[in-house]
Amino acid sequence: MSLPHELEIRVRYSETDRMGVVHHSSYLIYLEEGRTALMRDLGLPYDEVEDSGFALGVRKLDVRYRQPARYGDVLKVRTEVLRLRNASILFGYEIRRMSDGALLFTGSVETVCVEGATLKPVPTPPAIQEALEKALAGSPA
Amino acid sequence: MSLPHELEIRVRYSETDRMGVVHHSSYLIYLEEGRTALMRDLGLPYDEVEDSGFALGVRKLDVRYRQPARYGDVLKVRTEVLRLRNASILFGYEIRRMSDGALLFTGSVETVCVEGATLKPVPTPPAIQEALEKALAGSPA
Amino acid sequence: MSLPHELEIRVRYSETDRMGVVHHSSYLIYLEEGRTALMRDLGLPYDEVEDSGFALGVRKLDVRYRQPARYGDVLKVRTEVLRLRNASILFGYEIRRMSDGALLFTGSVETVCVEGATLKPVPTPPAIQEALEKALAGSPA
Amino acid sequence: MSLPHELEIRVRYSETDRMGVVHHSSYLIYLEEGRTALMRDLGLPYDEVEDSGFALGVRKLDVRYRQPARYGDVLKVRTEVLRLRNASILFGYEIRRMSDGALLFTGSVETVCVEGATLKPVPTPPAIQEALEKALAGSPA
Repeated sequence: MSLPHELEIRVRYSETDRMGVVHHSSYLIYLEEGRTALMRDLGLPYDEVEDSGFALGVRKLDVRYRQPARYGDVLKVRTEVLRLRNASILFGYEIRRMSDGALLFTGSVETVCVEGATLKPVPTPPAIQEALEKALAGSPA
Repeated sequence: MSLPHELEIRVRYSETDRMGVVHHSSYLIYLEEGRTALMRDLGLPYDEVEDSGFALGVRKLDVRYRQPARYGDVLKVRTEVLRLRNASILFGYEIRRMSDGALLFTGSVETVCVEGATLKPVPTPPAIQEALEKALAGSPA
Repeated sequence: MSLPHELEIRVRYSETDRMGVVHHSSYLIYLEEGRTALMRDLGLPYDEVEDSGFALGVRKLDVRYRQPARYGDVLKVRTEVLRLRNASILFGYEIRRMSDGALLFTGSVETVCVEGATLKPVPTPPAIQEALEKALAGSPA
Repeated sequence: MSLPHELEIRVRYSETDRMGVVHHSSYLIYLEEGRTALMRDLGLPYDEVEDSGFALGVRKLDVRYRQPARYGDVLKVRTEVLRLRNASILFGYEIRRMSDGALLFTGSVETVCVEGATLKPVPTPPAIQEALEKALAGSPA
């Protein structure tokens, strides 16, 4: 896997709104797809994370919409791990239009590791922590 | 509660698509809101149904879109119980625009009672069965 | 393109609900992706259909949910054209789980061709009609 | 209208995910409902804004998820205008659970006024600017 991780996503018709562009809430789905694809490519499918009794809940969003995506666009979602702490992970993102490389969206999402049953924050299990270290920005790929 | 049950729903911006109208998948959400509001008004909130170990899964849809709903519309969702069997419930629906009463949508949704843990079909628990009998089409209100 | 048309879709986390399975409304999105992918593969991208002043609105659904899809599943959406009339198109569907071929969902969606500006039904333009004839069930592929 | 503006929203089943809580993308819909309800109560329904040839596009999100919302919860969305500039509006938000007042979510959304046809940024039309001034944080209600 080369870094940052890249995922192609084709805009779905249902993701557009009557302004004729992709609704701003749809980008959060693209980001979630980006980080779960990253984890899958690191050998850590997110369904298995949850089956092992943990979950990564979203705690913070800090994002900027730069140009609208439209129906017909294929997007490239670039995901990297910007920071790993005891319980939290900061993912950094860029979304570009494939056809011309235009930058549509940038931002970060902070997740916190929680126990699946109680949703209480807990330290990230070592297996997850170690896998994600390989995707840390600036790591040798 | 008078029958059929009525619920007002204001169209959300995010429910529209680039055709300028409400996306056809959004109506399924309106129907779900209609039948859970009906159950709540029958003293049977759906979260309590699930907490008691059961769920009502959707098994069949047979619906017709008649006129488009638009952003700015407030809708009236009319829900009734058309048929109660051992494990399945058939809900009947009409959606009208409040401002002029225009009929936008008609259809039916069949749900099946399942055990929450396994999602295997089971007979509808008596408490749910009895509550829904009160909403059977043709019942004295 | 072999028939029926097949599209792989990976279940997204956001498409699940608290029952732990894919929410029933998400299948309509899969069907829409199936028929627009079919059209794209027929050389008729749906954004170009709309840019030419027409739209295909959903008029009827007749579908059956057979087994739940879950997060982690990759689905195969099989789409074919069951019937072409002057203004309406009937699409037939099957959704299977890739890993074991289990049949999760079957059904049909009828669309009607409308003028984009007014949403009034109109005869399907010949270019669309001719392209879709190639995907008619029973056609030589 | 008292300030900050308050809107009650009942969590929909479809807004939950398999973690058993409201999916993080659903909060953006609540925020959009909050600011369009605010505008409607200021005599400026958002559909009329768009019909007059303008739109308010989302440019930035800066939000924090504090406690999960669940199915069965009724939420109170508090919206205020934190800052009005030539073309941009900064909306501030708090979401609380009605039953116990627990603070679930805080954040801000920046929108930019665009011309509907081109989506190019333009100065906010005076009618919109003046209406929103009445909802500025710290204004006499």
